[in-house]
Amino acid sequence: MKIAILGVGTVGSGVLEVLEQNASIIAARAGESITPVAALVRDKSKAKENVKHLKVYDDFDELIENDEIDVFVELIGGVDLPYKMIKKLLSKGKAVVTANKALLAYHRSELESLAGEIPFGFEASVAGGIPIIKALREGLAANHINSITGILNGTCNYILTNMMNKGLAFDEVLKTAQELGYAEADPTFDVGGFDAAHKLLILASIAYKLDAKPDDILIEGISDISAEDIYFASEFGYTIKLLAVAKRNENNLELRVHPALLSKDKMIAKVDGVMNAISVVGDQVGESLYYGAGAGSRATASAVISDLIDIARKIKTPMLGYKDKGLDSGLKLLKSDEISSKFYLRLKVRDELGVIAKITNIMSANGVSIDSFLQKPNSNGGDATIYFTTHTCKSAQMKALIDAIRILDFVVGEPFVIRIEK
Amino acid sequence: MKIAILGVGTVGSGVLEVLEQNASIIAARAGESITPVAALVRDKSKAKENVKHLKVYDDFDELIENDEIDVFVELIGGVDLPYKMIKKLLSKGKAVVTANKALLAYHRSELESLAGEIPFGFEASVAGGIPIIKALREGLAANHINSITGILNGTCNYILTNMMNKGLAFDEVLKTAQELGYAEADPTFDVGGFDAAHKLLILASIAYKLDAKPDDILIEGISDISAEDIYFASEFGYTIKLLAVAKRNENNLELRVHPALLSKDKMIAKVDGVMNAISVVGDQVGESLYYGAGAGSRATASAVISDLIDIARKIKTPMLGYKDKGLDSGLKLLKSDEISSKFYLRLKVRDELGVIAKITNIMSANGVSIDSFLQKPNSNGGDATIYFTTHTCKSAQMKALIDAIRILDFVVGEPFVIRIEK
Repeated sequence: MKIAILGVGTVGSGVLEVLEQNASIIAARAGESITPVAALVRDKSKAKENVKHLKVYDDFDELIENDEIDVFVELIGGVDLPYKMIKKLLSKGKAVVTANKALLAYHRSELESLAGEIPFGFEASVAGGIPIIKALREGLAANHINSITGILNGTCNYILTNMMNKGLAFDEVLKTAQELGYAEADPTFDVGGFDAAHKLLILASIAYKLDAKPDDILIEGISDISAEDIYFASEFGYTIKLLAVAKRNENNLELRVHPALLSKDKMIAKVDGVMNAISVVGDQVGESLYYGAGAGSRATASAVISDLIDIARKIKTPMLGYKDKGLDSGLKLLKSDEISSKFYLRLKVRDELGVIAKITNIMSANGVSIDSFLQKPNSNGGDATIYFTTHTCKSAQMKALIDAIRILDFVVGEPFVIRIEK
Repeated sequence: MKIAILGVGTVGSGVLEVLEQNASIIAARAGESITPVAALVRDKSKAKENVKHLKVYDDFDELIENDEIDVFVELIGGVDLPYKMIKKLLSKGKAVVTANKALLAYHRSELESLAGEIPFGFEASVAGGIPIIKALREGLAANHINSITGILNGTCNYILTNMMNKGLAFDEVLKTAQELGYAEADPTFDVGGFDAAHKLLILASIAYKLDAKPDDILIEGISDISAEDIYFASEFGYTIKLLAVAKRNENNLELRVHPALLSKDKMIAKVDGVMNAISVVGDQVGESLYYGAGAGSRATASAVISDLIDIARKIKTPMLGYKDKGLDSGLKLLKSDEISSKFYLRLKVRDELGVIAKITNIMSANGVSIDSFLQKPNSNGGDATIYFTTHTCKSAQMKALIDAIRILDFVVGEPFVIRIEK
């Protein structure tokens, strides 16, 4: 099988390395050798050493005319350019493998229609080396999926793990993460939850055949989490994780990405550092969990090549795992405001008489009932930090409550909430 | 797609229930409905209510002539009878799905040859609802597998978890496990490590194309683990798990099932109760881990039906994941005695002068060097328990050492060792 690599950056180079290093085992498993024959680069004159043995193109329209190529592996990144390229490839009946989560977060339904019976692999787009696409689409195919709960962003998990374990502040850990190459210079896409949201949409579309876009779902990041939140979590048996959650409740579906307080006892709470994991609850199989490296050129290459081996083996699973488009179409995606959860609420207040009474009155007026309450002893006589956890309420109620609390004259700074995941 | 269920016990009934309950989502994912049309039972006159709508057979040779059937699902259990049946089915070109680990532990290579291009599914044979066969055979296919470390027996894990958490003795927990249905009346097959060994052989044959049999590998059970071992483990940051391990070291392969002291920090050490998990280290992808229910009729049915869906989707992965038989044939399976590890050694001795010196001399004479040493304060002035951990040595050396220690006049009862897993 002959392939072309479109975009020879970190992942593209990793794919070339693994194809060479593990050529014989890959051939034995695929039933034939998988050979890179062409590469698409931005500038042919600047092509790196590792593509010199391939036919190198810098013009996609020229590359696509090379009939020798069986599969095109898109590793360029971004949305618009690969979107155009892949549409063109599929319209010509060419098999495609991609690691591009952003592309799929926006265009997977259209690409699925275009693909039809044409092989289209995207295992590498979610959770790097963990074969979670295959698990959901094939391994758990006998189940209705009750929920998917993922730690899908290694940068956030690295930061939160280090905040928890070392009691460090967000900015401090972010800096270390940047130095170690675990975070980008502009970390917004990761720490804002957007990367995890892209991946969640891909998983949810396999489980629920749902064509939501990033703008349709609740996305909250981790950058406002403070040492005080870490203190509370540690004291009360929680850890804090950025979770990407798809949860079905009868005909309602929640899709949400947010930091969450999570009981330390849960298996997924034990996933630390840059590792990823996905817990899937099926109606028949119960919980299963998938853990591994979510990024890195070799782990991602492992996933890309598993797709290539599937294609060589003539595996014809439908791209999103369904042949029938109608199924689960009765599902209603909840708006962010409608999503219910328990909340943790942290407030800083001036240490005055009657403060607690006033706040609890406002909470009850907003229909938010208190599950637990803690006021930290105030050693220096200044402002006091108070912590509440609530019973289940809607996001809209919590938003209204925060708006009401924020304007109280004894409240200092911004109230802060984190959802509590059951 | 029309199927026959051979053996309608707990799992067979589960498969029928799930096929009915989730019929529409299964059809959407498979691309066609999957319909049970026939069942093989021991005695037609005693057939249960749940097969009354099917064509019921008690004669296999009659059933096999029913040309309406596309796939035969073997859920009878045992080895000899299903072996004969499946050979006959494959010789007639009939597709087979089985959950039968014992059958595959002994006959997988022959069945693979017979199957050739005929679909043969066995996802349910290892770790129930966890799609680990698919992960190894397809998801990680780009990797050389460095190691597989599994908690593959829920009965053992339930017992060990409760011994660790509640400080209970083996016999006590076994009794509870039997009452809860987690252990058989005769628990030997589970607590002796044989069940886990069967599953390990199946996984190892996908990773290494190796045709070993249960008698060829090291199998040690958990029934001699005492409260004292639990005490030591807890104090020194270990947990105790029954591990099934396949580990490659250049051209040597270890296959072994035994209780192991395992650092509590490892992800697989956190797998508690009846749950199963498999940690796989690939040369490219690093560690990934798969966790879920290892038994139960619904979880097993989920796996059986995933195989049926694969067959409906015309997925043609080779049964053990290889087309080329020659690969990895250079691997040498180590004999039990050649397997090296660190050991934990527990001894009871009369509290006499010079005992430690004598034992350490014998250890050094046997080439076993001490990593750590603990003597528990002996409150009642009777026998003393002493604990050693050793540096890496071969099993044969440890065996010789135990033989030398056993006969010392100040040694009381039987010395006991547990391997320490890195």
